[in-house]
Amino acid sequence: MIIRNATYFDGGKIAKGDLHHGPSDEEFDATGKFVIPAFSNWHTHLSMTLMRGAGEGEKLQDWLNNTIFPMERRLTPDLVYKGAMLGLAEMIRTGTSHFIDMYYFAESVAKAVEASGIRGTLGTPITEFGTAYYDDAGHALRLAERQLKNAVPGGRVDYCVAPHSIYLCSKETLLKAKDLARKYGVKLTTHISETRKECVDCHKETGLWPVEYLDSIGLLDENTVMSHAAWLTKMEVRILGDRHSTVVHCPTSNMKLASGGVMPVHELLDAGVKIALGTDGAASNNSLNMMQEMKFASLLQKAHRWDATAAPAPVVFKMATQDSKDLAFIDLNDVRMLPHHDLIANLVYSGGAVTDLLVDDRLVMKDGVITTFDEAKIKKEFLEAATELLK
Amino acid sequence: MIIRNATYFDGGKIAKGDLHHGPSDEEFDATGKFVIPAFSNWHTHLSMTLMRGAGEGEKLQDWLNNTIFPMERRLTPDLVYKGAMLGLAEMIRTGTSHFIDMYYFAESVAKAVEASGIRGTLGTPITEFGTAYYDDAGHALRLAERQLKNAVPGGRVDYCVAPHSIYLCSKETLLKAKDLARKYGVKLTTHISETRKECVDCHKETGLWPVEYLDSIGLLDENTVMSHAAWLTKMEVRILGDRHSTVVHCPTSNMKLASGGVMPVHELLDAGVKIALGTDGAASNNSLNMMQEMKFASLLQKAHRWDATAAPAPVVFKMATQDSKDLAFIDLNDVRMLPHHDLIANLVYSGGAVTDLLVDDRLVMKDGVITTFDEAKIKKEFLEAATELLK
Repeated sequence: MIIRNATYFDGGKIAKGDLHHGPSDEEFDATGKFVIPAFSNWHTHLSMTLMRGAGEGEKLQDWLNNTIFPMERRLTPDLVYKGAMLGLAEMIRTGTSHFIDMYYFAESVAKAVEASGIRGTLGTPITEFGTAYYDDAGHALRLAERQLKNAVPGGRVDYCVAPHSIYLCSKETLLKAKDLARKYGVKLTTHISETRKECVDCHKETGLWPVEYLDSIGLLDENTVMSHAAWLTKMEVRILGDRHSTVVHCPTSNMKLASGGVMPVHELLDAGVKIALGTDGAASNNSLNMMQEMKFASLLQKAHRWDATAAPAPVVFKMATQDSKDLAFIDLNDVRMLPHHDLIANLVYSGGAVTDLLVDDRLVMKDGVITTFDEAKIKKEFLEAATELLK
Repeated sequence: MIIRNATYFDGGKIAKGDLHHGPSDEEFDATGKFVIPAFSNWHTHLSMTLMRGAGEGEKLQDWLNNTIFPMERRLTPDLVYKGAMLGLAEMIRTGTSHFIDMYYFAESVAKAVEASGIRGTLGTPITEFGTAYYDDAGHALRLAERQLKNAVPGGRVDYCVAPHSIYLCSKETLLKAKDLARKYGVKLTTHISETRKECVDCHKETGLWPVEYLDSIGLLDENTVMSHAAWLTKMEVRILGDRHSTVVHCPTSNMKLASGGVMPVHELLDAGVKIALGTDGAASNNSLNMMQEMKFASLLQKAHRWDATAAPAPVVFKMATQDSKDLAFIDLNDVRMLPHHDLIANLVYSGGAVTDLLVDDRLVMKDGVITTFDEAKIKKEFLEAATELLK
């Protein structure tokens, strides 16, 4: 694509001119638009859009037991597909072109991603107990291997291995999951150190904190992606740096679920750890908007550290666009983007209107209209599906 | 206005049908729209839209000294008007129909509010030192009295008395300000207990914490509105309840400026204190969006108290719509409002697209188009003004 009259970042400074991106020679006029790397949402459970707003205000354990788990037991491939489609519409509208997902019926999510035109790295959440999708961890691992085998190389959908967490997976399952990830050269993603209870339980059982534990069984390397990491010790920060692993900050979800801990962003960056940003699922956020996630990420650090200079806009912008391959276009004349004193600060703290999204050399949204699917139709189907699921 | 086919709240339950609001018999079809009380932003400095994004990432005192104060010394009535107009566009687009303002050249803000069609309660910030607008506190008090004298009864613009704070106003000035407010039967608004330094300084000087100090000089009654209140003692909470005063929570600003303190929302509510919500100025938020402010208000309490049930959606929604006289309309089919499990939770945690705003029996926005002024024109003028001011 040849992008004409773009406003974009070039080595930290705002530049104006033409940009070439991707192989095609098609021209696109970006007059009045700020061109940025599209957002990459490194941790979500996309189809949980179906549960957005269900059981609000309950305590975490009640909410899971009374609302989420019963709904998840009734999930079907069709419901998961419809939930994913709505989530994709929301992500496209807010400039996200790639996400890492952990959810049941990953094949249905894959079908939705294919239809949407954006990219997804999908993983079946592996737990010891059975779910609507599989009988036990062994079954889940077989499903995960089938997904990896059938993946189309170079496609927009790829797969990862996603053992749920140290508290829902045995050591044996974690090791098998990592073996599978290594065999196929893909990411392993898991939840880690989200609550204090998880950390204390791990320490009681193993004498190690969660990251130490994962390291002790050989799970950490540059392809390991751990979400939350809200309760870390200094030693764990050092280990994460040594292993070149990635952590995914989910500030909104941590605040909403009252996890208590706050990711030590600056200590992790100092240790050389790669930090990405994730919204978590729409049931615990309740948004999939990475611009809003950047604001929460920055402000949570400032508030927690009593330091207004903590986690400045460029730092969280980098976290929100890790490994991005695509471009998003922001309306420079939207009220939120005015004035133009600091365009990145505007995006992070004020938010912006995404007009277009260029993924894999194709505009999946053009001037505010999604080009890849019928948005009105998927909304209607989604609303029916979500209403049915709540019954 | 007769509103047909509305979806609205009726005694805590969702109802559908027709609504009458205001004297006119004009009909409005609200099919597919959720009708809510319009938001009321109880603390802002509207024209600081001009400074949005300026000096980001600096420490508070450096930011004030190097960026904000030099810009404010160059303010003119025209610049303030243009800044206010952009802020009004942003407020209308996000469903706010009334705000309490504290800024220089209040007459320019008044002119903008008149043009916008929404409501404003305006106050000149009174400080001992001179500003671009006045020479000293005595001069500022005379300006404030002139505003109160000239106010049109029953109009959409009214005035309050706005001594800046206990640290920028002498006891004498505070007392004169309250006398003025009492004489005209209007609100007195001030900043209170925003930083720990302010509280400690007050205690050193007077032996009292800030709210105790204001109470000791007779400033607190049901017409006193205090913004921030992030650092309060139990005794101060009790005093605020006894005096029936109002506090304005500004969670985003407190987090961004790293004030450290967190308003004790539940203790205040238990003491019977009225709590409103405010965005503060766009220079320290950087948004004027009350839906986003509700999310920060709710999540800050949950995170701070380690309690996912704290500050639930209906509580912060009440705070955001205190004394609202108007109606906002939300698109029920926007991705953020789907599904419809809990419409208030959707608004608070996910946000919504405001389609229309009904103020004083007039639609100031209709199907996403502001009807009261030329938005493209005011944006152009604003961008020129802000660029000039930064030079």
